[in-house]
Amino acid sequence: MGRSVLKFGGTSVADLDRIAHVADIVAHRARSGEALAVVVSAMAGDTNRLVSLARGAAGDAVKGDQFDDEYDVVVASGEQVTSGLLALALRRRGIAARSWLGWQMRMHTREGHGAARIDGFDQESGLADAIDGGEVAVIAGFQGVTDEGRVSTLGRGGSDTTAVAVAAALSADLCDIYTDVDGVYTTDPRIVPQARRLTKVSYEEMLEMASLGAKVLQTRSVELAMNNKVSVRVLSSFAAPEDDNPGTLVCSEEEIVEKQIVNGVTYSRDEAKVTLYGMEDKPGISARLFSLMARAGVNVDMIVQANARGQGRANMVFTCTSADSDKARAILEHHRDEGLFENLDVTRDVAKVSVIGVGMKSHTGVAETMFEALFSKNINIDVISTSEIKISVLINADYTELAVRALHTAFDLDAS
Amino acid sequence: MGRSVLKFGGTSVADLDRIAHVADIVAHRARSGEALAVVVSAMAGDTNRLVSLARGAAGDAVKGDQFDDEYDVVVASGEQVTSGLLALALRRRGIAARSWLGWQMRMHTREGHGAARIDGFDQESGLADAIDGGEVAVIAGFQGVTDEGRVSTLGRGGSDTTAVAVAAALSADLCDIYTDVDGVYTTDPRIVPQARRLTKVSYEEMLEMASLGAKVLQTRSVELAMNNKVSVRVLSSFAAPEDDNPGTLVCSEEEIVEKQIVNGVTYSRDEAKVTLYGMEDKPGISARLFSLMARAGVNVDMIVQANARGQGRANMVFTCTSADSDKARAILEHHRDEGLFENLDVTRDVAKVSVIGVGMKSHTGVAETMFEALFSKNINIDVISTSEIKISVLINADYTELAVRALHTAFDLDAS
Repeated sequence: MGRSVLKFGGTSVADLDRIAHVADIVAHRARSGEALAVVVSAMAGDTNRLVSLARGAAGDAVKGDQFDDEYDVVVASGEQVTSGLLALALRRRGIAARSWLGWQMRMHTREGHGAARIDGFDQESGLADAIDGGEVAVIAGFQGVTDEGRVSTLGRGGSDTTAVAVAAALSADLCDIYTDVDGVYTTDPRIVPQARRLTKVSYEEMLEMASLGAKVLQTRSVELAMNNKVSVRVLSSFAAPEDDNPGTLVCSEEEIVEKQIVNGVTYSRDEAKVTLYGMEDKPGISARLFSLMARAGVNVDMIVQANARGQGRANMVFTCTSADSDKARAILEHHRDEGLFENLDVTRDVAKVSVIGVGMKSHTGVAETMFEALFSKNINIDVISTSEIKISVLINADYTELAVRALHTAFDLDAS
Repeated sequence: MGRSVLKFGGTSVADLDRIAHVADIVAHRARSGEALAVVVSAMAGDTNRLVSLARGAAGDAVKGDQFDDEYDVVVASGEQVTSGLLALALRRRGIAARSWLGWQMRMHTREGHGAARIDGFDQESGLADAIDGGEVAVIAGFQGVTDEGRVSTLGRGGSDTTAVAVAAALSADLCDIYTDVDGVYTTDPRIVPQARRLTKVSYEEMLEMASLGAKVLQTRSVELAMNNKVSVRVLSSFAAPEDDNPGTLVCSEEEIVEKQIVNGVTYSRDEAKVTLYGMEDKPGISARLFSLMARAGVNVDMIVQANARGQGRANMVFTCTSADSDKARAILEHHRDEGLFENLDVTRDVAKVSVIGVGMKSHTGVAETMFEALFSKNINIDVISTSEIKISVLINADYTELAVRALHTAFDLDAS
């Protein structure tokens, strides 16, 4: 059998009991003859503890590069602990294993500390030979080493990215991301009990789902998998080792034979709508407005402008995250005297609901079906935004669950 | 000014407040122009937490070499955290600083994991240049790296040894061990309020004191300092940075001009006395007995044999640590049928009291003064053992404080 990379997140290694369970899963697969590299996160809560210590020691006075290299030294210790613990737990089960830290496997990173990007690891570190020889490599996720020999970390959620990068470098058959759900669902099962686990989902769909709030996989890890054609599987770390645990395969579109037009319905309540009334109707106003937003770090999502011709003034609506909305309001108020607009309204009682599917590329009528389904429930659409494989609408947040259920049914996603 | 090595133990870096205080001390010295390497232990309690996690993961099934390398990976993370935190706290105070981990300074160790011995660090790591250039090196104590590139730890208290090894390698003027006491005392101030802080103490005396229970410095670090002629100072980490904080200098005998005959009175309650009645009086019996003890790992300390001539049988007394006494009893009972002795008695209500001083080498009458002082208080002596610079007696534990006070006065050690 070939090489596989497994990854276990913080909740999967949260305490010794959970680590023992993970060791059982890994031991079961090792005994079946797979050559295994296992990437682990820090114990749930440990990273927060370390971040808070580092911030407490540094204080407000230390910022940016002055801070990040030592911050990384402190925070990377969390994954060092779990890699050692899992190696011990595997040996206890009679499985040959050893831990690999970022500097030992020479996991090169660039672009500074705190949110470094992986360049891949050094094949001469001996890791590949070790796993081919039957020794499980337990890799401390989330960490690497800079050209200067300093510890670096990849930023939050970086262990998914570590796993995909290792899988790419090892030409692994599979990169299995064990997590606290058993796969990727057509929608949130808390809202739609008939939601189905997807057998396969394309990278593009997964990227849209991840960026829209279905936080199963980190966006960067999916991009890296897509660029390196690594097949990623999302599956449950709570299942028993011998259980059937198929999960969801995230792969390229070509590997998916039966393409659904729509594969998922996602929603996000973390939205705010900004309405500008009486905007001056002349060139350059929008550019000025969104350059102000960009400089303040406000990420603008949907934009709609409806011009009432001949009146010289128009209304504009845009959305940003709830968290950014106060900042957006403050900047707009600050620049009000530039005469860009007459009045301003910011509301957070909105939600974004989206349907996603690669099948849209070759099918028409998706928007029609979507709007009819919402209309049939008397749900008003505020703003619409589309991409090649996604249609998103902004609606009153009170209707979120109703809209998600209606769309799930309208696109035949309910489990039979 | 020259190079200095400072070391702060676990209680000195127990939380962010204590780390801030340590940073103040280091910053104060850095500003005075010293080139500084600072060795830190893990936060008090953190090593115990990590040891307990490692043991929990490994279970009873994993022993010895099968365990120690990954144990080291887990436990060494504690010092990694404090080295990063202190570097951050120093930068906050405007002091250039960076952390150095065992693998970064190439602190080579040998003799396996868990209790490795230091071979010294690689001068080409750049550490010496860094501190000479004004950047404080914050060194993770207690850890090193093996020839195979694995993490190793030096065993408990290893950070003292790290500090002395770094001081030796850097030819530092001084190795300052900051701790929770302000120096080495003539005896335990809890028993004798008139106990005095010693200005200087020789390596040899310090070794006897350390091995007898005055746990200010780890024995191995004192040996290393003696072999490399490193001057070590023990001083308080609780004093304010600008305070006069002379501590106690541990140095070679030649540097001590005014030698006291006796410099310290120590005691240990962690003793057990084993009495064997009716031992066969023929050659080989003692050898057989102590080979049994040695093979079981029982460290025998004092031995006294009193032969009642002509009776063919004798009594023997020896001492070991309280912790070992059950093991000693079990082995002796197990071999009782060999006829080595007739009866056996193990008691733990004994204490060892010692007087220590390099002056003994050239002065007579020390034993006489000691025995008279004890006799004047009606304290019975069970066993006596002597070395070149030490006389120890075993007494009934009830008399421990009385004996210590009597000896402290008899040898003129009371502060005036």
